[in-house]
Amino acid sequence: MSRIEYKNLTSAEAYRKLKTAPPPAELSSFLTAERVQTCSIDAGGGLTYNYAAKQADESLIRLLGNLAGELRLPEKYAALLSGEVMNTGENRMVLHHLTRGQLQGPVLFQGRNLGDFYQKQQERINEFAGKVHTGRVKGSTGKPFTSVVQIGIGGSDLGPRALYLALKNYVRETTGNTFMNAHFISNVDPDDPNEVLSLVDPERTLFILVTKSGTTQETLTNRQFVVEVMKRSGIAGLNPKGHMIAVTSETSPLAKSPDFLESFYIDDFIGGRYSSTSAVGGAVLSLAFGGDVFAEFLAGAREADAKALEKDIRKNASLLDALLGIYERNILGCPVTAILPYSQALSRFPAHLQQLDMESNGKQVNRDGKPLDYKTGPVIFGEPGTNGQHSFYQLLHQGTDTVPLQFIGFKNAQTSFDIETEGSSSQKKLNANLAAQIAAFALGKADANGNKNFPGSRPSSLLYGDRLTPRALGALLAHFENKVMFQGFAWNINSFDQEGVQLGKVLAGALLKGKDVSAVLAAYGELLNS
Amino acid sequence: MSRIEYKNLTSAEAYRKLKTAPPPAELSSFLTAERVQTCSIDAGGGLTYNYAAKQADESLIRLLGNLAGELRLPEKYAALLSGEVMNTGENRMVLHHLTRGQLQGPVLFQGRNLGDFYQKQQERINEFAGKVHTGRVKGSTGKPFTSVVQIGIGGSDLGPRALYLALKNYVRETTGNTFMNAHFISNVDPDDPNEVLSLVDPERTLFILVTKSGTTQETLTNRQFVVEVMKRSGIAGLNPKGHMIAVTSETSPLAKSPDFLESFYIDDFIGGRYSSTSAVGGAVLSLAFGGDVFAEFLAGAREADAKALEKDIRKNASLLDALLGIYERNILGCPVTAILPYSQALSRFPAHLQQLDMESNGKQVNRDGKPLDYKTGPVIFGEPGTNGQHSFYQLLHQGTDTVPLQFIGFKNAQTSFDIETEGSSSQKKLNANLAAQIAAFALGKADANGNKNFPGSRPSSLLYGDRLTPRALGALLAHFENKVMFQGFAWNINSFDQEGVQLGKVLAGALLKGKDVSAVLAAYGELLNS
Repeated sequence: MSRIEYKNLTSAEAYRKLKTAPPPAELSSFLTAERVQTCSIDAGGGLTYNYAAKQADESLIRLLGNLAGELRLPEKYAALLSGEVMNTGENRMVLHHLTRGQLQGPVLFQGRNLGDFYQKQQERINEFAGKVHTGRVKGSTGKPFTSVVQIGIGGSDLGPRALYLALKNYVRETTGNTFMNAHFISNVDPDDPNEVLSLVDPERTLFILVTKSGTTQETLTNRQFVVEVMKRSGIAGLNPKGHMIAVTSETSPLAKSPDFLESFYIDDFIGGRYSSTSAVGGAVLSLAFGGDVFAEFLAGAREADAKALEKDIRKNASLLDALLGIYERNILGCPVTAILPYSQALSRFPAHLQQLDMESNGKQVNRDGKPLDYKTGPVIFGEPGTNGQHSFYQLLHQGTDTVPLQFIGFKNAQTSFDIETEGSSSQKKLNANLAAQIAAFALGKADANGNKNFPGSRPSSLLYGDRLTPRALGALLAHFENKVMFQGFAWNINSFDQEGVQLGKVLAGALLKGKDVSAVLAAYGELLNS
Repeated sequence: MSRIEYKNLTSAEAYRKLKTAPPPAELSSFLTAERVQTCSIDAGGGLTYNYAAKQADESLIRLLGNLAGELRLPEKYAALLSGEVMNTGENRMVLHHLTRGQLQGPVLFQGRNLGDFYQKQQERINEFAGKVHTGRVKGSTGKPFTSVVQIGIGGSDLGPRALYLALKNYVRETTGNTFMNAHFISNVDPDDPNEVLSLVDPERTLFILVTKSGTTQETLTNRQFVVEVMKRSGIAGLNPKGHMIAVTSETSPLAKSPDFLESFYIDDFIGGRYSSTSAVGGAVLSLAFGGDVFAEFLAGAREADAKALEKDIRKNASLLDALLGIYERNILGCPVTAILPYSQALSRFPAHLQQLDMESNGKQVNRDGKPLDYKTGPVIFGEPGTNGQHSFYQLLHQGTDTVPLQFIGFKNAQTSFDIETEGSSSQKKLNANLAAQIAAFALGKADANGNKNFPGSRPSSLLYGDRLTPRALGALLAHFENKVMFQGFAWNINSFDQEGVQLGKVLAGALLKGKDVSAVLAAYGELLNS
């Protein structure tokens, strides 16, 4: 494969042109109904990306397209799909896309076709989930499993948890019930496992231990926590080994351990925050909802992935979303982006995107380790609407910083029961609020009373679809993954490592082991000592 | 009472001195163990505020003290307690403090002692909760109430929900069980009430309708939603009126309605985001945990309130916290602050502070409605540690913006069961991580490999206590309320109104009613129409 040139954002001629171009007029002056009707891109999975309310006229979008072209962003994405070493710091390929199908040539490693390997793991999970659902695999005391508890942290927690919550009501509505309830234990705070264990019946619970390395402190501690609680339960015949499966890498100390009913594998080419479509999300979601639901979810992600190969920025939603974000971050100077889903089912989706984005692109050096002289990833936060309207929207409307907004909405609810009050259903009210907020942020409203003045021209985008189905959810997830990677390419950073989490981990370990630590650290340890 | 002068931050001589003073050396150069041991302030309720790892040496703190003095911040706080009209835009007093006791002279309004009024409401709630707990008040089909569901949004949801989650395990641990399980319905998305209603038995559920004005669209819609579901349940004798109480103002259309078992009152002097210690939080928390637990919580809040009257900035934790935040926002230019509790029980506490802070101080005009030429409230976000360490901490350590951090920790867990692995308990591991993170952020670690280089000097504070008890939680809440108000005084803004939420509400209403709306809004409405 021909090597693509990598260069810093500020070295790109197209970036200099973007920076020196006269800025577009205020958004409020050029946002028209026609723009709303035409500024749409098919994002895959039944989703549409609408950028009418972005601070970007046609000439700006042309400049962004030139930037994507000069930096060869779609080509870099294609190279990633093909197995180029994109995680430069750790010298690894980045292959989470292969969990949803092969879009470029096959990727081989040490003679193994990795696409086949990931698919094989999902088939094994499917088979295992089927055995659990039909009672062929039961708990150690002979009772069927009714609950599943994932033990994992970071990418082994946030993505799968957000996706579980996103689909729970949909599955209950369409199939009458879910196969199993899912819970999650993540924090090393003992209050976390104690809480979750108070909610489940150990005889009927299957635990999934998720740690790629097999060495994550919190996760191994919580595994032991669960085992101890089961041992002390006093239930005759209860054997923790009969209640736990593992998702880990084949090289981990946990692989092929006799302490698990079954083990499913990932590898170093799938980073934690990108692992929701691998066995990390696949095990818990297939157990909770069945393999068919998970397969639909993967199909939706694959559709969005295919769209991201498109070279025309006007047809590539995640690429345009990425470059509009670069414009807002590097030219307009916005330090924060908000994720605002008008869907209660997406209550924890912003928390997943917070990890995905901030851990990927919160970097200060380029992919070669050289310091950067421009801003990289913004802070990401968000809560569902309409709840957020009664919380932090005040600052978004009238605060002293502009925060670009990413709205998400669906024409229909997941659940079917609804009521009419004052001439409209709850779902209509939800979406009227969403439409009204976009308009209010963009257009504002002048008022002589400064306190009631809305400056407007606060930019937003809207990702919308018919209903939050597994397919739509897969596309939604993949859209943001691809957006984050495109931004990483544009910033010329490595979006796939996380060296910034190491120092704290090392210091905590030293303090716990009684090793020689700095006087400052020792003093803080003392403050918190019971 | 003598009128205190109000002036913009940038008009203060002490602010000009702060701005022109030579900046302190880098935090990493002056943070010592001695600082850790000495830079502590008793914050009330058993909490300690430690500011050792703030970018503030003694001379800077002196300048902040001068600023507090010139702007007469403690005097403004005292005036607020005494009933001065602090909500200038709406011409209202700000009296949520009176729900936890009277710290200055009595506040009278139309002949009524408002402190007595709020206390009376809490006594009525106590009495009612006692009747529910002992079965003297039962559901309409004769079954005891075992669950309580709060219907409210914004301040009627975020604070009470965060506090319920914060105390649930504590109460279970200390009393064996809670009196009632609590759930919350907030979003107008029909998926929200459908989900919650699938979790409770209507015959055994008491609903609390919380809306001060009695006109909140989402809340009234969800009330009707609940009533419709009960009507359609087919359960003989099930009467919605026997399952619902109200928390509202005496002037609301809901007041004294025969549709409620009982009504408890608040008034316009308690803003939604400051209402957790009023009947808004009191009803659900007293029903779930009993009035004694709620009384301890109020006592803790009162202790923190009393501390905030202290004029010496070195003895007033919320005042110092506020001014360090002003320094970070206006001099250092930091646009975001993170709230990082090392306690899983505080999982939703950052979401509450997000509203409290961003809705209070996300303002662009001063208290007289004049535009400001300086930054006001930052974006607030956060998640519990250690979870966040595996998520967004990468950006906090190595991103291109400095994000000031507010850590919260407790020496002991809420639950007592814990295990030892590798020589330490889970709780020790949790706190070792907390100490290590503070040290890592502040001190950094130089590395020739840019990717492993930690710049350090990233400032943080630590609020810590022995255990997250109701008393500690009350103080924690009040600390942040007082911090936010002190910042509002310093910025010379009105922290008690929220005009920025009006425009979207009006536009959504117009769209729903089929009124004449802008073509842009109509076009967005069309996109989302099913």
